[in-house]
Amino acid sequence: MEQKVYLLPGPTKPCQAVLDCYGQFYGSSDLEVDAFAQDYDDAACLLRELLTIPQDSSVVMMSGEGMVGLWAGLTNTLRPGDKVLSVNFGSYGKGIGDMAAGLGADVEYFGEGDTEPLDRNKHWKQLESKIRSIQPKLVTLVHCETPSGTIVDHDLLELVGNLCDEVGCLFYVDMVSSAGGVCIDLSANKVDIALLGSQKCFSLHSDITILVLTEKAWKVVEENKDKSGYDALLPFKNVVDPTFSGERLFPYTMNWSSIVALKESLTQLKNEGFDKVYQRHIDVAEHCRNRITKIGLELHVEEDYCSPTVTAIKVPPTIKWEDLSSELAKKQIYFGRNYGTLAGKVFRIGHMGTQAQLHQVNKGVDALEEILSCGQQ
Amino acid sequence: MEQKVYLLPGPTKPCQAVLDCYGQFYGSSDLEVDAFAQDYDDAACLLRELLTIPQDSSVVMMSGEGMVGLWAGLTNTLRPGDKVLSVNFGSYGKGIGDMAAGLGADVEYFGEGDTEPLDRNKHWKQLESKIRSIQPKLVTLVHCETPSGTIVDHDLLELVGNLCDEVGCLFYVDMVSSAGGVCIDLSANKVDIALLGSQKCFSLHSDITILVLTEKAWKVVEENKDKSGYDALLPFKNVVDPTFSGERLFPYTMNWSSIVALKESLTQLKNEGFDKVYQRHIDVAEHCRNRITKIGLELHVEEDYCSPTVTAIKVPPTIKWEDLSSELAKKQIYFGRNYGTLAGKVFRIGHMGTQAQLHQVNKGVDALEEILSCGQQ
Repeated sequence: MEQKVYLLPGPTKPCQAVLDCYGQFYGSSDLEVDAFAQDYDDAACLLRELLTIPQDSSVVMMSGEGMVGLWAGLTNTLRPGDKVLSVNFGSYGKGIGDMAAGLGADVEYFGEGDTEPLDRNKHWKQLESKIRSIQPKLVTLVHCETPSGTIVDHDLLELVGNLCDEVGCLFYVDMVSSAGGVCIDLSANKVDIALLGSQKCFSLHSDITILVLTEKAWKVVEENKDKSGYDALLPFKNVVDPTFSGERLFPYTMNWSSIVALKESLTQLKNEGFDKVYQRHIDVAEHCRNRITKIGLELHVEEDYCSPTVTAIKVPPTIKWEDLSSELAKKQIYFGRNYGTLAGKVFRIGHMGTQAQLHQVNKGVDALEEILSCGQQ
Repeated sequence: MEQKVYLLPGPTKPCQAVLDCYGQFYGSSDLEVDAFAQDYDDAACLLRELLTIPQDSSVVMMSGEGMVGLWAGLTNTLRPGDKVLSVNFGSYGKGIGDMAAGLGADVEYFGEGDTEPLDRNKHWKQLESKIRSIQPKLVTLVHCETPSGTIVDHDLLELVGNLCDEVGCLFYVDMVSSAGGVCIDLSANKVDIALLGSQKCFSLHSDITILVLTEKAWKVVEENKDKSGYDALLPFKNVVDPTFSGERLFPYTMNWSSIVALKESLTQLKNEGFDKVYQRHIDVAEHCRNRITKIGLELHVEEDYCSPTVTAIKVPPTIKWEDLSSELAKKQIYFGRNYGTLAGKVFRIGHMGTQAQLHQVNKGVDALEEILSCGQQ
């Protein structure tokens, strides 16, 4: 039987060693407290290296899909009426602003939505003056806008981070689809709340979310000490603090298998070499774009803005997306569809984590080429 | 190497067939929508049989630890100032009331806390008059109070459910530690919001929570349509409604492996025969209590109130819990400790799910007997 080729922008298929971790029972985090904490710390330590996490930041891993972390970053810091600036390029940027608005925050949007990517030369000055003028409590930004396949420039991230630091607001960055596939330096970027998911570049099941919080972010969380609920962060504060010496009882029974799976995935990235991992993503993405344009398809955005983890491609006028995807499915090839204003117009080839492989992308583009050339006959 | 014998009140060790499900990648719930929905529906259907779920109720499965469901049941139904009656026998009963209070609800407590179990003859009349007099929006109750090892009588559950129905309030029942090990009839008990976890009698990883909601509960959820956050239930409404005919896109990427694991666990319970499963739990619990009293230990509560899933035992005056548990650990035997007012005074033998086996309980009690008799020499 031919195997399915998933080229989705997540969930990506875990490798066998990671799957083996899920297939084991490690015990209870409430009983063998130290043994669990050791696995937790090992995973956090590897994340510290991967993302250049400053010493005074903490790593919170929560049981649940990535969205729980995205919500936690907002619900623990915002109160009704708080000013939020939502950087809105691509659809997730707007989505996060809408989530904040749903919590009663006073949200302003900066950006062009799906129509164009965030550009340092073009937008920085405007963004800077916007932040200075409205003095928000929180600036939200999406590092990799998966639907449009775009990535925010490292230098721009640093400019925004430094400005947030200067004006004393929190910098909230969704890195769900970039962390582990793109070089990130949280220390240099001064990100206060970094949000990560498991099922993208880490190639894990969709069962864990990760938040990295600076001391500055914790201070705001502590001001909201009445915040309750599953996504309350304060109950995690002590147990994730490297200097805490008490018994490390987490707010609920942790999914030990998923923490070991994360540790295994991060160990593999480290063994490959983080730089080599990033280069693999860059190479595969470039190869993907080259092949895509060679077969006559158009990228959704210019090369400079393309994420190394996912490529967004215009659906050609000769075929409907529904027909194209059903032809692809016959060949057991699966690309990502799109949502909102890009639905039916733009599709995605995900090449993140275990999917960042030339041969896998080639299989996908070969099938695409075959289907499109058949249509032309 | 001798194998560890876990006799915890959760997490319980998944059997190999369930572990194998976690060790597989099934794809994306956002892509192969129908195939995922089929697995979801299969699991829901098995739950319908197991718990006698009425036709007009829906089954919501969320990614995360059991606490997310417990919170969701409260956050989606309560607004600040809403009256809640928290049935407080054992420590979890009080805990749920405190969670509701943390959301701004006006909470009254009924009960004796850890000091005695809920008794139909003794407490029903008082409880009835309390509910009638305060007319709460929500009555919360814990079916199996894991810390004290007690279970609420089936008839009492039905009396409370019928009364809640009569006075028009919602009946919220935490069944995390009983569902799958104790006979439950949600239809007869008129439970509006039943909360279940994965790591107890279902013997799964702690990565999924289940809510069963009646139409009456959904109406209240719909009145709170502005409720946002990871635990918002309304985004699940359509996709879990058996009559919904649209595309079933869940609010986030589901953990497909965990749904298949749940389906596998439920299939095993069905194949064994639900009645036989309950009898196995009853028999093992009775055997456990007999052996415990025979070796001179005292149960925390009288036999009539004991849960078939967990036995709570007084720590004997001859030894400290810390010493007892460390001696047990040397023999690779793990019992559950306790928290709050019962910490150090009462410990637990969990015999739920895959742990509801005579030979396993015997290993645990043998070790206990050996340690205690050594101490007497």
